Amino acid sequence: MTRYKLTIEYKGTDYAGWQRQDDVPTVQQAIEEAIASFSQQDVKIHAAGRTDAGVHAKGQVAHVDLDKFSRDMEPFEIAKAINAFLRPQPITIVKVEEVSDDFESRFHAKNKLYQYRLLNRPAFPAIEQGLVWHIRRPLDVEAMKTAAQILIGYHDFSTFRDSQCQAKSPEKTLARLDVTARDYDAYDGQEIIFEAEGRSFLHHQVRNMVGTLTLVGEGKWSADDLKAALEARDRTKGGPTAPSDGLYLVRIDYP
Amino acid sequence: MTRYKLTIEYKGTDYAGWQRQDDVPTVQQAIEEAIASFSQQDVKIHAAGRTDAGVHAKGQVAHVDLDKFSRDMEPFEIAKAINAFLRPQPITIVKVEEVSDDFESRFHAKNKLYQYRLLNRPAFPAIEQGLVWHIRRPLDVEAMKTAAQILIGYHDFSTFRDSQCQAKSPEKTLARLDVTARDYDAYDGQEIIFEAEGRSFLHHQVRNMVGTLTLVGEGKWSADDLKAALEARDRTKGGPTAPSDGLYLVRIDYP
Repeated sequence: MTRYKLTIEYKGTDYAGWQRQDDVPTVQQAIEEAIASFSQQDVKIHAAGRTDAGVHAKGQVAHVDLDKFSRDMEPFEIAKAINAFLRPQPITIVKVEEVSDDFESRFHAKNKLYQYRLLNRPAFPAIEQGLVWHIRRPLDVEAMKTAAQILIGYHDFSTFRDSQCQAKSPEKTLARLDVTARDYDAYDGQEIIFEAEGRSFLHHQVRNMVGTLTLVGEGKWSADDLKAALEARDRTKGGPTAPSDGLYLVRIDYP
Repeated sequence: MTRYKLTIEYKGTDYAGWQRQDDVPTVQQAIEEAIASFSQQDVKIHAAGRTDAGVHAKGQVAHVDLDKFSRDMEPFEIAKAINAFLRPQPITIVKVEEVSDDFESRFHAKNKLYQYRLLNRPAFPAIEQGLVWHIRRPLDVEAMKTAAQILIGYHDFSTFRDSQCQAKSPEKTLARLDVTARDYDAYDGQEIIFEAEGRSFLHHQVRNMVGTLTLVGEGKWSADDLKAALEARDRTKGGPTAPSDGLYLVRIDYP
């Protein structure tokens, strides 16, 4: 038996999230079935973190234990074989690596990077429907950038925590929260990108932080309002939850 | 009657190209129907250039003549009204501008920018299926960048011209052909972007240039082979036609 680390990219739009559920398509099930089809082994894969319905990943990480194959297979051949069965579903194994038997995708993760993409222009997204959050009214990027700094560091993030969150503590360290803008088209459209990095996050934390920051971007809230909301430690004092469309689990780092 | 310039974004995947045809969905038909639904006017729109099946646009330009509305409408309101009827099709009017009656989207275009996106990594694209050309084997970006310079300038581009091309002359001036690479994921994947600029292009010219440049990227051709192919003025001496998936009509400039 060998343990493998899988790095996975997927478009979450048509999935009810990562975790297996009855009667709805999930990313976990699709991958487990592809592995079963190629290896004839009935396996369970363990992800670093569950992603919600509609959330995308460029670098989800999971581990899986596989019995020895009838012939030696290099990790890149295993990735190719799984992908042959995944295709044309919007899920692809970017990388397979052999790891030690005690590697745990979830417990050993020391840093996660999420990206949130927001399209800020009057016209709805044609090419990237489902891949960005669309906001028509112009947002003040500088104001959001400044306000985002308030959230960095060790805080009780209850204001940005979903009621379904199963984390033991609402206290987390947010290592980085950058807000940048770039031209989206050759006209007036801009894409606003939020990058959030930390060891772990509460359920909906990134989407709640982004949704709340858009209140600052719209000029409805000042940076002080954001600070007061954080200090209230109360979800009802926070802003709306940004939709899943714009969220990407980009990278997970291990020691 | 007022003439309007429309700037249009679309995902070409599910369309048989720009131009109206019987029994297949086209971008032109979708927009003409949306305009008819909102304005009750039976109109024909005229694009700067037809795009082929599967080709995308971030900045296609078309013009249309509309009768006066029952109430005054600002251009941005017209865009909003057309988009309301286009949605949820992957076509969106990015901008509407009032132009003079003699404005011709096709004949007055003085410069066009095309982008071609290529994903170069082992794993197939999950998030951007249909939006990039996928090549597994690593390509030498520097070799392609150098070779691309050979194509810049005024040439007979017969080697890169589709047999269906209706242009009067195979002689065109290619103003710019840049090849750049950037990280696509946090692992080994890279995206290679070709940007081609010029007043006008032959049918399939960009896709044929890109397809031929990948031969250089694979090391099968030298820059001298590319030069010889150009000078042969013979399509059979060129490389393959890159698929439509990666091609974007990004911007059209007018005086």
